[in-house]
Amino acid sequence: MLRQALNEFTIRTRGRGLYEFTDEVAGWVAKNGFKNGLVTLHLRHTSASLLIQENADPDVRRDLEAFFARLVPDGDPIFIHTAEGDDDMPAHVRTALTAVNLSIPMSDGELALGTWQGIYLWEHRKAAHSRKVTAHFVGE
Amino acid sequence: MLRQALNEFTIRTRGRGLYEFTDEVAGWVAKNGFKNGLVTLHLRHTSASLLIQENADPDVRRDLEAFFARLVPDGDPIFIHTAEGDDDMPAHVRTALTAVNLSIPMSDGELALGTWQGIYLWEHRKAAHSRKVTAHFVGE
Amino acid sequence: MLRQALNEFTIRTRGRGLYEFTDEVAGWVAKNGFKNGLVTLHLRHTSASLLIQENADPDVRRDLEAFFARLVPDGDPIFIHTAEGDDDMPAHVRTALTAVNLSIPMSDGELALGTWQGIYLWEHRKAAHSRKVTAHFVGE
Repeated sequence: MLRQALNEFTIRTRGRGLYEFTDEVAGWVAKNGFKNGLVTLHLRHTSASLLIQENADPDVRRDLEAFFARLVPDGDPIFIHTAEGDDDMPAHVRTALTAVNLSIPMSDGELALGTWQGIYLWEHRKAAHSRKVTAHFVGE
Repeated sequence: MLRQALNEFTIRTRGRGLYEFTDEVAGWVAKNGFKNGLVTLHLRHTSASLLIQENADPDVRRDLEAFFARLVPDGDPIFIHTAEGDDDMPAHVRTALTAVNLSIPMSDGELALGTWQGIYLWEHRKAAHSRKVTAHFVGE
Repeated sequence: MLRQALNEFTIRTRGRGLYEFTDEVAGWVAKNGFKNGLVTLHLRHTSASLLIQENADPDVRRDLEAFFARLVPDGDPIFIHTAEGDDDMPAHVRTALTAVNLSIPMSDGELALGTWQGIYLWEHRKAAHSRKVTAHFVGE
């Protein structure tokens, strides 16, 4: 018999950068005894992203940030929505270029993540924020 | 006992730009009395996207469009697939850079969208199109 | 009564490029008699992507590859994570710019793909790799 569950994670950021929360998701899954199914995460913001990326070498996150900072520069004169700061519209563009949803199957009590995959909240604003992620599980 | 449902939305566009259809999705959810679960949307096209973005200031959509028009310019000589127009291959690239699927949890009869999040169809072609979005619900 | 199922696909690549595996997914769905529901695919790697794109004219894939090769050039001096080769960090960036999850509804025994939509594994590394995709189905 399939069941479902919902949860909300709060991720506190210290400004722009990648914040791993794989352990929070894995902890929720373990505490509830989910075995097989599908975990979906949805970020309730438009200036941050959810990302699955390498969690081994921290240089990967540094380089991702460097690439996106060059691709979508703060203060780009192409933007007219600037009232909330020169990093606000770049944050919306970065969100459009990445994702706010992730869906990860589970098998035998484990998230089906690859060896090097971690689940990240990518904060695109320069200021610290408190970010909300809604999680849904369906399975058994 | 979990149940599921399917639906199809048709979004008529007037050419390139962002078309919000949050109300159509919320209306389907309300009419069927879905309480808790997961709504998944899939766009059946390769030259338009689904996007969750800010629905407050329309300048955000204007700036998103301006950024993508510069990043993936129409008529870029790098493209050889040009038979369907100089905006066709840029439309495929924009689709690859964004998404055609969205998954949004529901809690207490509400889509778990953030305060400023709206659900958009992003038309990437310059001509008007009729776009099909298949929706799936699982939950109760 | 809803049910679920899990599967793993292995896609062998010959280096950078788009590899369609729509038939493998459709074959799994048909063999199990899935009628209506949701198929979710998750790629267990951080240097390749899952993509839904046009499967008619091969020039579309050629142009996608050409655009991304220019946008995220191999050997870009902005990158410091270079120990695994000059195409490694570009592969991570391409993955961030695209997706590792796809969710596709099913209706009447068919994946709800548009006429021109195919499911692709996009290999971003220059060398051949064996890539694992975990699949989940919920429905009936």
